[in-house]
Amino acid sequence: MSASSRTLNLAVIPGDGIGQEVVAEGLKVLSAVLPQDVKLETKEYDFGARRYHATGETLTDADLDALKKHDAILLGAIGDPGVPSGVLERGFLLKLRFAFDHHVNLRPSKLLPGVATPLAGEPQIDFVVVREGTEGPYTGNGGTIRKGTPHEVATEVSVNTAFGVERVVRDAFARAQARPRKKLALIHKNNVLTFAGHLWTNIFNKVAEEFPEVTTEYMHVDAATIYLVTQPERFDVIVTDNLFGDIITDLAAAVSGGIGVAASGNINPSGEFPSMFEPVHGSAPDIAGQGKADPTATVLSVALLLRHLGYDAEAGRVEEAVSADLAERTGKPARSTSEIGDALAVRVAG
Amino acid sequence: MSASSRTLNLAVIPGDGIGQEVVAEGLKVLSAVLPQDVKLETKEYDFGARRYHATGETLTDADLDALKKHDAILLGAIGDPGVPSGVLERGFLLKLRFAFDHHVNLRPSKLLPGVATPLAGEPQIDFVVVREGTEGPYTGNGGTIRKGTPHEVATEVSVNTAFGVERVVRDAFARAQARPRKKLALIHKNNVLTFAGHLWTNIFNKVAEEFPEVTTEYMHVDAATIYLVTQPERFDVIVTDNLFGDIITDLAAAVSGGIGVAASGNINPSGEFPSMFEPVHGSAPDIAGQGKADPTATVLSVALLLRHLGYDAEAGRVEEAVSADLAERTGKPARSTSEIGDALAVRVAG
Ligand SMILES: CC(C)[C@H](C(=O)O)[C@@H](O)C(=O)O
Ligand SMILES: CC(C)[C@H](C(=O)O)[C@@H](O)C(=O)O
Repeated sequence: MSASSRTLNLAVIPGDGIGQEVVAEGLKVLSAVLPQDVKLETKEYDFGARRYHATGETLTDADLDALKKHDAILLGAIGDPGVPSGVLERGFLLKLRFAFDHHVNLRPSKLLPGVATPLAGEPQIDFVVVREGTEGPYTGNGGTIRKGTPHEVATEVSVNTAFGVERVVRDAFARAQARPRKKLALIHKNNVLTFAGHLWTNIFNKVAEEFPEVTTEYMHVDAATIYLVTQPERFDVIVTDNLFGDIITDLAAAVSGGIGVAASGNINPSGEFPSMFEPVHGSAPDIAGQGKADPTATVLSVALLLRHLGYDAEAGRVEEAVSADLAERTGKPARSTSEIGDALAVRVAG
Repeated sequence: MSASSRTLNLAVIPGDGIGQEVVAEGLKVLSAVLPQDVKLETKEYDFGARRYHATGETLTDADLDALKKHDAILLGAIGDPGVPSGVLERGFLLKLRFAFDHHVNLRPSKLLPGVATPLAGEPQIDFVVVREGTEGPYTGNGGTIRKGTPHEVATEVSVNTAFGVERVVRDAFARAQARPRKKLALIHKNNVLTFAGHLWTNIFNKVAEEFPEVTTEYMHVDAATIYLVTQPERFDVIVTDNLFGDIITDLAAAVSGGIGVAASGNINPSGEFPSMFEPVHGSAPDIAGQGKADPTATVLSVALLLRHLGYDAEAGRVEEAVSADLAERTGKPARSTSEIGDALAVRVAG
């Protein structure tokens, strides 16, 4: 688990669509950057739409037992228009996040030089969202009565516990404390969702007392979307619930260069279970198999993976390689997925 | 209720902060645009933070009985930092929306010439969001156990009924059908919130069969935030639930000129109860009483009010006046709240 074990035993889940292609490049860069004396052992798992179509299975107990033995997991993308909405999301992605208690969903947003943003001017964007990963409206609590009739009622229950909120808030404060600006924003909707809102706000304010150096602010989620497009430089670290985090991290990715460069980590900070790293983008079936996908988001997810496992210097080298590559793109012809991967592998090795 | 009654009996709720100032200008423009033979009767109500501080009351049954007698309601803004979060939102704003069954929350977004947007390029933005107003996670269902202890659990229940979803979906289809582009997007998160998601999606698809001319698409709420900043021209009419609607309409306002120009209607389409019209912005206590607030969002809300009551020509004149005023702003010194109101009143009368 730690860098000193000198073996990196990685579970690889390429998944569907462009997942296959981008993961290959992520592994290429990972191999190139790891110190010579670290042995990279990978085992590939065939989870996703193809397996579901073939066997009806999404993620079994045996699968979880197998995955558990790895130091970390690298995932490409899961999903296919042929699978009903929700089956792979609930049956695989969320099942894994919950089973491995991935309660810190880390999503950095940094607008790198040379990268296009839909925003006017030259916004400075460099923040990280700490999204809660195991609670909120994602628990699958809820149900339906009188399905398909004019009297159908469907509910979704957002479940928020002091235990679950406090650990993710504490993680976010620690991350804010470690950054130069030391700012943390809580995003919620505590004027409407008053039960969950009070829990989040009270715990946030309580933990804040232990981090006197961290400047805090509270923001409603609707207002936060405004600031993300008008004053993105305002943000340093954001902590928020599972659903609000889902929404604002896609917006954050859009303004800071698009989901082609957005990385994420589903982290179990205690190390009890392996953490999982994946690009924010999906399987993009429309461009799959054509070598058109940009592997950068996956490569940046590899950097998060390296940092999580204690390979800080290597993580930094991957990030620098990506920055340099992006900075040189303007005006050049588009490269294929593997050409970008090759270029990054050369840079991190050099 | 209809234009033929030739009396417009309006409830006016200036509210707090800049609410007072912007409502005065909204009324100025309304008086100026109404046909000579229409008698405008207004009655002012003192709801909001001041009344709450003085009496502890937010909205009583007697208040609701009084409001019920009006043709429509014009609201400025409610809220004050001295009132705990949630008290006026749940106790006044949401109570009123629920009591008067304001299930169609109409929020147009149109980027008018001369108006600044945070987006690069020259985006074409002209869409309307039909946000459900009486269900979803806004119902106040949920609760807290073991409050304030390390074992606290807080829940929020999103309640979705076939009745509630179908009527708002139907309203949105009718609006899409009446627009030149005839496009309707459903925004939800049906891959995670599968109970509510299936209800929304099934009803949307069923009602779609009755509107064969309307082109439909489905989009997850997270992806929608990306499109709102990268391809806002993609949207024509959007229908969505109460919480997703809250979030995306603030983002929509931000990209189409800011909340200074964002109008909204809380509509009871049957006319059983008066509908309420209000700017999307809040009470902005930081600039209150200084004549700095832009009354444009309130004036555009007056246009929505006029159209709702059947004064289509007058609504059009208000919108044209606003367009002309905005188009001439660039490079001019900032005007006060009442100067902008005066200018608009002159334009609509002229
Ligand atoms: C695919 C879906 C279950 C997932 C989520 O909602 O968390 C995705 O949108 C993400 O952000 O990782
Ligand atoms: C103030 C609040 C209750 C309200 C909402 O969430 O609906 C506001 O944000 C809005 O959009 O009208």
